[in-house]
Amino acid sequence: MIKVAVIGAKGYVGEELIKLLIKHPKARITVLADKINGATTIISETYPYLKGVLDLQCEEVDYQKISDNADIIFLALPHTVSIQLVPKFASLGKKIIDLSADYRLKDPEVYEKWYESKHSSPELLKKAVYGLPELYRKKIKKAKLIANPGCYPTSIILGCYPALKHKIIKKKGVIIDSKSGISGGGREFVKSYKSPNTYAYKIGGLHRHISEIEQELKCLITFTPHIVPQERGMLSTIYMKLKKIVSSSEVAQVYRDFYAGEPFVRIVEAAMTKNVVNTNFCDIALNVDKRTENLIVTSAIDNLVKGASGQAVQNMNIMFGLDEKEGLA
Amino acid sequence: MIKVAVIGAKGYVGEELIKLLIKHPKARITVLADKINGATTIISETYPYLKGVLDLQCEEVDYQKISDNADIIFLALPHTVSIQLVPKFASLGKKIIDLSADYRLKDPEVYEKWYESKHSSPELLKKAVYGLPELYRKKIKKAKLIANPGCYPTSIILGCYPALKHKIIKKKGVIIDSKSGISGGGREFVKSYKSPNTYAYKIGGLHRHISEIEQELKCLITFTPHIVPQERGMLSTIYMKLKKIVSSSEVAQVYRDFYAGEPFVRIVEAAMTKNVVNTNFCDIALNVDKRTENLIVTSAIDNLVKGASGQAVQNMNIMFGLDEKEGLA
Amino acid sequence: MIKVAVIGAKGYVGEELIKLLIKHPKARITVLADKINGATTIISETYPYLKGVLDLQCEEVDYQKISDNADIIFLALPHTVSIQLVPKFASLGKKIIDLSADYRLKDPEVYEKWYESKHSSPELLKKAVYGLPELYRKKIKKAKLIANPGCYPTSIILGCYPALKHKIIKKKGVIIDSKSGISGGGREFVKSYKSPNTYAYKIGGLHRHISEIEQELKCLITFTPHIVPQERGMLSTIYMKLKKIVSSSEVAQVYRDFYAGEPFVRIVEAAMTKNVVNTNFCDIALNVDKRTENLIVTSAIDNLVKGASGQAVQNMNIMFGLDEKEGLA
Amino acid sequence: MIKVAVIGAKGYVGEELIKLLIKHPKARITVLADKINGATTIISETYPYLKGVLDLQCEEVDYQKISDNADIIFLALPHTVSIQLVPKFASLGKKIIDLSADYRLKDPEVYEKWYESKHSSPELLKKAVYGLPELYRKKIKKAKLIANPGCYPTSIILGCYPALKHKIIKKKGVIIDSKSGISGGGREFVKSYKSPNTYAYKIGGLHRHISEIEQELKCLITFTPHIVPQERGMLSTIYMKLKKIVSSSEVAQVYRDFYAGEPFVRIVEAAMTKNVVNTNFCDIALNVDKRTENLIVTSAIDNLVKGASGQAVQNMNIMFGLDEKEGLA
Repeated sequence: MIKVAVIGAKGYVGEELIKLLIKHPKARITVLADKINGATTIISETYPYLKGVLDLQCEEVDYQKISDNADIIFLALPHTVSIQLVPKFASLGKKIIDLSADYRLKDPEVYEKWYESKHSSPELLKKAVYGLPELYRKKIKKAKLIANPGCYPTSIILGCYPALKHKIIKKKGVIIDSKSGISGGGREFVKSYKSPNTYAYKIGGLHRHISEIEQELKCLITFTPHIVPQERGMLSTIYMKLKKIVSSSEVAQVYRDFYAGEPFVRIVEAAMTKNVVNTNFCDIALNVDKRTENLIVTSAIDNLVKGASGQAVQNMNIMFGLDEKEGLA
Repeated sequence: MIKVAVIGAKGYVGEELIKLLIKHPKARITVLADKINGATTIISETYPYLKGVLDLQCEEVDYQKISDNADIIFLALPHTVSIQLVPKFASLGKKIIDLSADYRLKDPEVYEKWYESKHSSPELLKKAVYGLPELYRKKIKKAKLIANPGCYPTSIILGCYPALKHKIIKKKGVIIDSKSGISGGGREFVKSYKSPNTYAYKIGGLHRHISEIEQELKCLITFTPHIVPQERGMLSTIYMKLKKIVSSSEVAQVYRDFYAGEPFVRIVEAAMTKNVVNTNFCDIALNVDKRTENLIVTSAIDNLVKGASGQAVQNMNIMFGLDEKEGLA
Repeated sequence: MIKVAVIGAKGYVGEELIKLLIKHPKARITVLADKINGATTIISETYPYLKGVLDLQCEEVDYQKISDNADIIFLALPHTVSIQLVPKFASLGKKIIDLSADYRLKDPEVYEKWYESKHSSPELLKKAVYGLPELYRKKIKKAKLIANPGCYPTSIILGCYPALKHKIIKKKGVIIDSKSGISGGGREFVKSYKSPNTYAYKIGGLHRHISEIEQELKCLITFTPHIVPQERGMLSTIYMKLKKIVSSSEVAQVYRDFYAGEPFVRIVEAAMTKNVVNTNFCDIALNVDKRTENLIVTSAIDNLVKGASGQAVQNMNIMFGLDEKEGLA
Repeated sequence: MIKVAVIGAKGYVGEELIKLLIKHPKARITVLADKINGATTIISETYPYLKGVLDLQCEEVDYQKISDNADIIFLALPHTVSIQLVPKFASLGKKIIDLSADYRLKDPEVYEKWYESKHSSPELLKKAVYGLPELYRKKIKKAKLIANPGCYPTSIILGCYPALKHKIIKKKGVIIDSKSGISGGGREFVKSYKSPNTYAYKIGGLHRHISEIEQELKCLITFTPHIVPQERGMLSTIYMKLKKIVSSSEVAQVYRDFYAGEPFVRIVEAAMTKNVVNTNFCDIALNVDKRTENLIVTSAIDNLVKGASGQAVQNMNIMFGLDEKEGLA
């Protein structure tokens, strides 16, 4: 039984981690803590549905105590908070999965540019592995620090990678229009969201996840995130210019080959959020617009599962040599 | 008091027309009919909320009787049905506002290509006026047959037109990603829509509204329609390549000038469906992505109001010399 | 044109008042103020959909200035706030419609018992008219101060009154199970409401609206309010013991006679929130359970319209001798 | 590994069964069939989210073949269909869990009265065990045919039983007001449900589940089912007359004692659907109204889990001697 600590238990991502881990047959939550939302309470007071299921205390962060009681530590914290905690747990020799953005960028200068402050642990940046199993499975197996990807980057990188790698499309002019359920905005955002509403935000190259996507795809992108009125689920619609006209089914075959054997990527006719919510799947559909010579990829995930907590559990499974699907299917 | 007939009273668009017209101070519904959904019934049996408000019979279509009892006829019917009724009412000398797609395309060959059948009244095509008041107000005033624009085209044409006209952007490479509430799919679609779901459909140049948009914008577009889980409301996100870098506020000024005096177009900081649902407004926001030299326009309407029935009432107001906002504000 | 002031413009009920009044053909909003939510702002900054429709300042409360600029003052404020403002506007001779609970109870001792503080203006209590037009139309016509009924009381009193008056049912053992949309809880509540949830609250005789209902019905009631996951709409299901077995249709006839001529009460086969939302109607259905000798009344309103702002406008119409439906149909 | 057949795989309840069984560590779905929704298809065509998870054929019903390939058969079929299939599988010696109402009533005359047709297998009625583990666990262990309770009866019987058994309340005058999510109405109903709507149906002693509830509680009830706008979840509010005044906490203690050791009943401060959806829990809250001498019980379940498929799995676990929570927590 793997002993697991969840720091940030009262946030959205922390809650989702708890939901997944209580059903995981090979893991057991031994520590819950919350840096931000304060005082010690039984977790089932925060989440009444956990009554009789998990009646653990949610404590203040005590580095030594947590390290003594856990084999792996999940940090589900906002960036700028996570950046400080990671080195402390790392120095105590613990395996860490950090769900914030703090250790995702390889280049500290890129970090500084997008996050407007110097990175305080550049040496750890080098050791961190970007936790996208479909690209970095081998490194994840041996890693001690996983920088778990963001939700937008997960749906987008998985949607773009095979076409870029196989040089089907031009690297210039990639346009990405993503739609996220409201849980993507975190708890405070959800509180402020009232009536059904669809809208774009951070238009014009302002969203920080761009840095992460461009690092992995090695090309400039135009990215517009949107909010749509559903609790969870995310769809990215990706427009890329074809080098030469190919059919939709030819592109689908390239993707099918690339993701052969992947437990959580499905190439489908139509990518829809309803088919992936509450699962760790990424569904990808491929369509060619012959009139305008574009490849249009649609890529759907659950932003809280494959886009955050599910992918974190998948990474844990890889790190501990378990079946990758354990607790996720 | 203008006497109004609504044909297609049992469809979504017909229902919305009724809702608007019962509050219109200068119009009165005198005839309701439905070609498709059959037998004569009191309309308040179909829409119980109309009990005590409008207890009119919804009848079979009788051309002469309808013409005798109405000054203007709204046709809220599917295409291929509308195409047959329009000539009959036209020959009886009636003013018509056709909310279907049947008389929107000027070129019968373009119609044939997109709708896969020969147009049966090409001579009426020439006389029909595309009912977008912001572009064709003068023609609408004198028209006898209005082809009321589709919802996607309304949000998109209003969002693109000033930038194209003022040559701020290139005509090549326009990409449009639209999100529609489920009512855009009509009644049968709504029945089949179950759990919250966001997805794209008719990807790759397949949606017939493309023909209408390209006719008005005179350029090739990549267009992907999406469904998002809200009853009504539509947001189009439009990506256009800038000829040269300008600021967002400069573009906003161009739009503000272009739409000066328009009662139903607002240039805003952020276009959101919640600010336009149940109104006839089109809200447009302008953003420049300097990194990738794109202009990103977001354009929001209520698909059933400015995207259909509200615009039809606006056209009626223009045709009868009323204040354009009558019954709409 | 009646000049209208709305105090409490930034709350839910105030917002709904504004929505109704901007469409009212005989009234014009001349003053907006907000005691609670502070600093002066253009109202369209708070409600962006009002941009270009109502660009009035929302000011601090200045009694003299407001009285100079308005013929009637709507107070959409929480109780304990309203109680202080009413006497000041009353002393300036203004017509007032108070949408709080502060002037609804005739007996200051009953007020003290349920609201746990002495009433500071018992003399005004006597002059206030309970603004339920179906019961007090004549008094409303001449009133200077209207205590606008609560949403639960409106749906319940209209649902019970004819059966009690015609002595069809016993006064003992009345049980009322009400279901309210979340807007009934006010803005702060809506913010805290996250995922779809149905539940009862203030179970066991704790809800203050009981006092108002019992005052009007003159009998003891068991009342359980519930929240259901829809923005607006309210359904009260009322269980009353029959004195003798009658048929559902006989009871319906009694109700139809009692409410004959009422513009906003409809006796229907099935009372459903969807048929009354965004209207000022109260729909009432009557069913007899012959097995258990109960009359079961279901009564549906829009909690924000007939349950608050719409009823307030109806009262204004009566006070100024207008058609009662003006601005409401 | 228990081999499981699900008949009625394309209905709502069948779908929920599949969702639970694919995660059950000791059971494996070996047969899927559907009597109603016809032709053979891969189940992941019906439920695209199952792609790569369960790619089994959904077949026509072949009694012998199904019996050869399954240790237990779940029938998720409408009544009148189930009644015919049960005897055939019973004669082949199979364990059966029937989720319809067909074998729930002990007395064939009561069945005939409520279901308006003679029961075709009265001898099987006697052998069937009412599958409510909290009351009949011992019988379930040895049963070959389980009549799985309905959703309303589950929430109501669990909510009433301890108070009746301990004679806290009078058997006369029990009033039950239940609120169900729309999935309770089955697939066809969900299709016809459009905008958010709360309403009562089958008012006045018409709902067939009354027979089942009265059989178990041995008293006459007034029961009004309602639909509320959420996909799943059910809340029953139960009004019972106290024999003598007791406190809420005294009643809660009686309930806590009665359900001590039950894995799926929780006595809580407030019963809310959001705390039980997607779980097999029944949450029960107890409140006394001292003014009117009523006990008010609120009882919340997920209508598709504890109210149908989850309870069926719980019954299977009991029948096969597994941990009762296996696959359900």
